[in-house]
Amino acid sequence: MESQNIYDNEAFFREYSNLRARDDNHNVLIEQPAMAKLLPSLDGKKVLDLGCGMGENCMDFARRGAERVLGIDISKRMLAVARERTADPRVEYRCMSMEDLAEIDESFDLIYSSLAFHYIEDLDSLLGEIRRHLRPGGMLLFSQEHPLNTAQGHFERDEQGNCTAYTVYDYNRASKIVTTWFVDGVEKYHRPMGQILTSLAHTGFIMEDVIEPVAEDWALVKRPALIKEQIKPCFLIVRAKI
Amino acid sequence: MESQNIYDNEAFFREYSNLRARDDNHNVLIEQPAMAKLLPSLDGKKVLDLGCGMGENCMDFARRGAERVLGIDISKRMLAVARERTADPRVEYRCMSMEDLAEIDESFDLIYSSLAFHYIEDLDSLLGEIRRHLRPGGMLLFSQEHPLNTAQGHFERDEQGNCTAYTVYDYNRASKIVTTWFVDGVEKYHRPMGQILTSLAHTGFIMEDVIEPVAEDWALVKRPALIKEQIKPCFLIVRAKI
Repeated sequence: MESQNIYDNEAFFREYSNLRARDDNHNVLIEQPAMAKLLPSLDGKKVLDLGCGMGENCMDFARRGAERVLGIDISKRMLAVARERTADPRVEYRCMSMEDLAEIDESFDLIYSSLAFHYIEDLDSLLGEIRRHLRPGGMLLFSQEHPLNTAQGHFERDEQGNCTAYTVYDYNRASKIVTTWFVDGVEKYHRPMGQILTSLAHTGFIMEDVIEPVAEDWALVKRPALIKEQIKPCFLIVRAKI
Repeated sequence: MESQNIYDNEAFFREYSNLRARDDNHNVLIEQPAMAKLLPSLDGKKVLDLGCGMGENCMDFARRGAERVLGIDISKRMLAVARERTADPRVEYRCMSMEDLAEIDESFDLIYSSLAFHYIEDLDSLLGEIRRHLRPGGMLLFSQEHPLNTAQGHFERDEQGNCTAYTVYDYNRASKIVTTWFVDGVEKYHRPMGQILTSLAHTGFIMEDVIEPVAEDWALVKRPALIKEQIKPCFLIVRAKI
């Protein structure tokens, strides 16, 4: 399958690297802390990271005691950075699409994915493959853009720039969105919340946590402007077991 | 516990009865058909209906073969209508709040609730009691106003009156809403989706379906104006087992 690979676009990669290098972006302040709270003990466990990017989480999983960590990503540029940064022999990177997960002949205790599922056209197939690659008692922990985001919308603001409301265009209808994020033509897939969660349930996942994280107090101290956006979630996080 | 009982307010009851008597309201066209699709076989089963109102669903459960149906509601007026309409000896009505569920000394195969949970202040307690009143293999099927509704908002419309977007004010924060629905001072509780679903999971429910129903074609034929509202869901429906 031909997967979209915006991350190897030179202009995109430069801008994205700058964003990720900042310590006050939404991932660092909201999504990553919320994901970390849901991580199980990784001592002696096997972990697969779908869309591992520059390897930050893979390295963290090894530090937490994982016996083996496999990170996959479609971006050669990202994986080059990840390999350069990672000395730990328990961590392996492979350049491939998570849509080709069937090619991996291994099973895992935790399958993890941060902010990548909204790029996937066929979520049902992916979830089926994830389930097949989980060991008994295994867990899926993923985040993605919140459906109120992927549906596209905008904040309403008062004269001081404070967000007063959020206007969303077409939440109900699953659709492919072509948008601009550093570069034109970034493709993502909007699915309403019920569709995502019912797909999980019908694939045999038992949902343990469905989280719409907000910035905590320490994050608001670091970036006070986030308080203005607190009226709607940016991210959806689900922890599920089989 | 003192439960809100708008349904025994005379003005409210008159207006509400008129609404329910119409065959083109949102319940009839969207919520009830979606709930019916998720009903399990009721043959020989015991069913509890939380907020049974005028008894339509209790009668339906008996027709579907339920061995016993208990409907509870806080409205004497509604139950008076229900009793008048129901001849079936397998159906019993009791005037009490679902917040006093602990007083019922029976267990059930299906606990059902249509459009009532958004009136409940302490959802966690209610879910705990529901779980305790389910037999092994039992099921909870409920609908409530969708969190995008309880968060309050409004449709944006173009000059022809078509909905172009939906603006929501404060989705993230759980809150008590005092609103006007036929009468002033109707109290309901907004909880974001993640909070409701995580409460279910932490109470020990396994979610099977999370549905944000839309009007189907036959319903759009009956009330074409509904197509204009299809951009966001009115209802949230969850089917869960223990």
